[in-house]
Amino acid sequence: MNVDWGQVAEAFARVLEPRRVVRRREELLVYECDGLTAYRQRPPLVVLPKTTEEVQAAIHICRQYGIPFVPRGAGTGLSGGALPEENAVLIVTALMRQILQVDIPNRRVVVQPGVINSWVTQAVSPWGFYYAPDPSSQTVCSVGGNVAENSGGVHCLKYGVTTNHVLGLKLVTALGEVVDLGGWVPEMPGYDLTGVVVGSEGTLGIVTEITLNILKVPECVQVLCADFTTIAQAGAAVSAIIAAGIIPGGMEIMDNLSINAVEQVVATGCYPRDAGAVLLVELDGSPAEVDEAMTQVQQICREQGARSLQVAKDPQERQRLWQGRKAAFAAMGKISRNYYVQDGVVPRSRLPWILQEIERLSRQSGYRIANVFHAGDGNLHPLILYDGTVPGAIEEVEHLGGEILKLCIQAGGSISGEHGIGAEKRCYMSELFSPEDLETMQQLRRAFDPDHLANPTKVFPTPRTCGERTWAAQQFPNVPVF
Amino acid sequence: MNVDWGQVAEAFARVLEPRRVVRRREELLVYECDGLTAYRQRPPLVVLPKTTEEVQAAIHICRQYGIPFVPRGAGTGLSGGALPEENAVLIVTALMRQILQVDIPNRRVVVQPGVINSWVTQAVSPWGFYYAPDPSSQTVCSVGGNVAENSGGVHCLKYGVTTNHVLGLKLVTALGEVVDLGGWVPEMPGYDLTGVVVGSEGTLGIVTEITLNILKVPECVQVLCADFTTIAQAGAAVSAIIAAGIIPGGMEIMDNLSINAVEQVVATGCYPRDAGAVLLVELDGSPAEVDEAMTQVQQICREQGARSLQVAKDPQERQRLWQGRKAAFAAMGKISRNYYVQDGVVPRSRLPWILQEIERLSRQSGYRIANVFHAGDGNLHPLILYDGTVPGAIEEVEHLGGEILKLCIQAGGSISGEHGIGAEKRCYMSELFSPEDLETMQQLRRAFDPDHLANPTKVFPTPRTCGERTWAAQQFPNVPVF
Repeated sequence: MNVDWGQVAEAFARVLEPRRVVRRREELLVYECDGLTAYRQRPPLVVLPKTTEEVQAAIHICRQYGIPFVPRGAGTGLSGGALPEENAVLIVTALMRQILQVDIPNRRVVVQPGVINSWVTQAVSPWGFYYAPDPSSQTVCSVGGNVAENSGGVHCLKYGVTTNHVLGLKLVTALGEVVDLGGWVPEMPGYDLTGVVVGSEGTLGIVTEITLNILKVPECVQVLCADFTTIAQAGAAVSAIIAAGIIPGGMEIMDNLSINAVEQVVATGCYPRDAGAVLLVELDGSPAEVDEAMTQVQQICREQGARSLQVAKDPQERQRLWQGRKAAFAAMGKISRNYYVQDGVVPRSRLPWILQEIERLSRQSGYRIANVFHAGDGNLHPLILYDGTVPGAIEEVEHLGGEILKLCIQAGGSISGEHGIGAEKRCYMSELFSPEDLETMQQLRRAFDPDHLANPTKVFPTPRTCGERTWAAQQFPNVPVF
Repeated sequence: MNVDWGQVAEAFARVLEPRRVVRRREELLVYECDGLTAYRQRPPLVVLPKTTEEVQAAIHICRQYGIPFVPRGAGTGLSGGALPEENAVLIVTALMRQILQVDIPNRRVVVQPGVINSWVTQAVSPWGFYYAPDPSSQTVCSVGGNVAENSGGVHCLKYGVTTNHVLGLKLVTALGEVVDLGGWVPEMPGYDLTGVVVGSEGTLGIVTEITLNILKVPECVQVLCADFTTIAQAGAAVSAIIAAGIIPGGMEIMDNLSINAVEQVVATGCYPRDAGAVLLVELDGSPAEVDEAMTQVQQICREQGARSLQVAKDPQERQRLWQGRKAAFAAMGKISRNYYVQDGVVPRSRLPWILQEIERLSRQSGYRIANVFHAGDGNLHPLILYDGTVPGAIEEVEHLGGEILKLCIQAGGSISGEHGIGAEKRCYMSELFSPEDLETMQQLRRAFDPDHLANPTKVFPTPRTCGERTWAAQQFPNVPVF
């Protein structure tokens, strides 16, 4: 492709303020990667619209010149969804940060995509409400990016991920049309296009307004930290809690390696360093409900062999228990030069099996793998520790990550719980979906983007980059069936 | 269209058992309408496949002859989604009634589309689980139809409608391809095509397997029946209960006209005949939680002027309180020769306004309108009472129903909460959605069904049948915004 980028930049400068059209090499640096820093590409041009009209104008210019575009939110994504392309404009929504409406009686907030996740809760907390999806990056990631990746968080076990909290969207399609999807009430007739766009990773267009559902802050919250000799015991406790009909707000497991990394960095003092695993269980609701459930949860943990139990009842204690979990990824830097975080899902009943398999892969490969995960959802975050200065290490680690994903598929699970597919995992899509399933998705994509301009190299595999892969028709061989 | 139906029937008889290819006039009678009995059309041919392969073969035959098809489940739909067409094959899934898998540890059930809604709960109740969406017709309606219409029910306030409980689908597309959508874990990468197909009313293809999520039966359930002098008081109680952070399992209002119809038919003895409205509130959870919330709800009802409060704590009493609500539609037959049920949604805060407006329409038109509704969701079911033997009555009643839908749109709501659009309401779609929004849906439809064979005359408006309508760009003029 032979593009006169000077000419294109001038076209953008006619519809945006010139300082929101970025071409200088040093200014482009910051846009070279998102949270998946192992993948880098300098974009030829970055534009920062502020309104729906400006986004529409930007897409029209791309169409006019036949140039693809890559949408980017706050750039905190972990699967390279916002990784630039050599010949594509990067359209950044970070300056679209207005909270447009707060409608407390109907529990809705309308925001622009650049609004930071935690701002939503701040805006509605005076009335006792909050916005539920809480990625660990929630103080820096944007709602637009959350919508693109269908982000989750530690409290998504009970309350669901982003798609469960989006009522409606304004979208500029890849064809440059402005459409309103969904509405102000939860279920709308016609096709659920809101649900399609949430999690579409910028491949259908750019979202410019988002109507979010907000929830009442629970009257009472308690957090339990239980430590176990083995991770298997912690896993059994998770199953038993769910089996008892209790749905905690969040339920997280950290293994010994993670505990030690965390205690070395943030020194919470909460997690015993010799524990095989700690289990964090957050319960919310009315005081009576929480007290009753907490008694049951403690009983279950003891039955499953918990060595000690700590219950935090005030916000400070709760924060201390959660602090280590929230810092877990960052803490890996203390015990390893580099780490690679994977994001896979298995049906909850397959957790013990997959943890054993990951341990086997770790032994065989010689790489340490830390496990920090949303246990209640079966959403794993294995962290593979490596030294990026060793030649060939990154390739080996990526291969190892791929092996873990294949195991997730084998267990009837998925290759992404909340981080998306992006640039990183698209080659594994053809192991999860049949050629017909993928072709059906492409049909939908072509309906929105016939010219293939919207984030064209993400999410879906191509034979050129991924080679030919065989899809195993029988996907659920190991799932127990009654 | 000139079709040799004898020849087409022979083609079907080669892939299905001949007795599952129906052509005899008297046997076709039963398929002339669904639950919307005001609309009738005898189909030229009815086929009843039993497997995915047979559905695929049936669609291939339709494609071969260029004949459209209309899918039908149990035929209980209320918007004419399964209304036959003069030149289309009716493909009925009623014989596809196998429960394929029950997977208790992962809380999933896989069923064929003809399985009756209540069978799912029956299948899992030995383990203490149930399937949440509960249309009033749940003992006769099928899961396939529920998926097509994205059905709700009285317990959908807390637990959501069908789409919130479907993990995955096997679909034979209108192109005759078999695809697997979604999976065995709640969030899958790629586009959420499961969400698109749920509620698509048979316009994309025919679903042949459905993976459902099941829930643990709550430990404790209590139902409160409160009666009020005015419906406005009952509405205010609903708002206050939600504002207090309580989310009941269900929360229903019946007005005076409905109360009297019900008491005349089922004589529950629970609903005072002179009440302006009764409010039914079902709370579920742990005993402590339910007791606490029930105390609060009773307090709120008293503050809003409740005249009397009855609490049912055992299953028999509960059933008695619900019995009238579940029989409400049928009971209208006792006080009116015919009734027409409408299904609209408004943001909860607009309930008092819309009820006033419906009362105004009733006064102006001279038609009695009973209100029975899912108050917690803002989902109205106005029942317009009329005498079908009076010339012109049905047209007037349809017009009146349309006026109510327009008011719902004006309030920022929707024209269907749970009954779908079907044949009945498609002309109102262009008042809810802009031309661009509708065209985007058509793009998606064409991706699945380029030849426009799947239920072609449903859901979407056409200028020929609906004329030109003007879409009011400003949809939410009356919604209070803070």
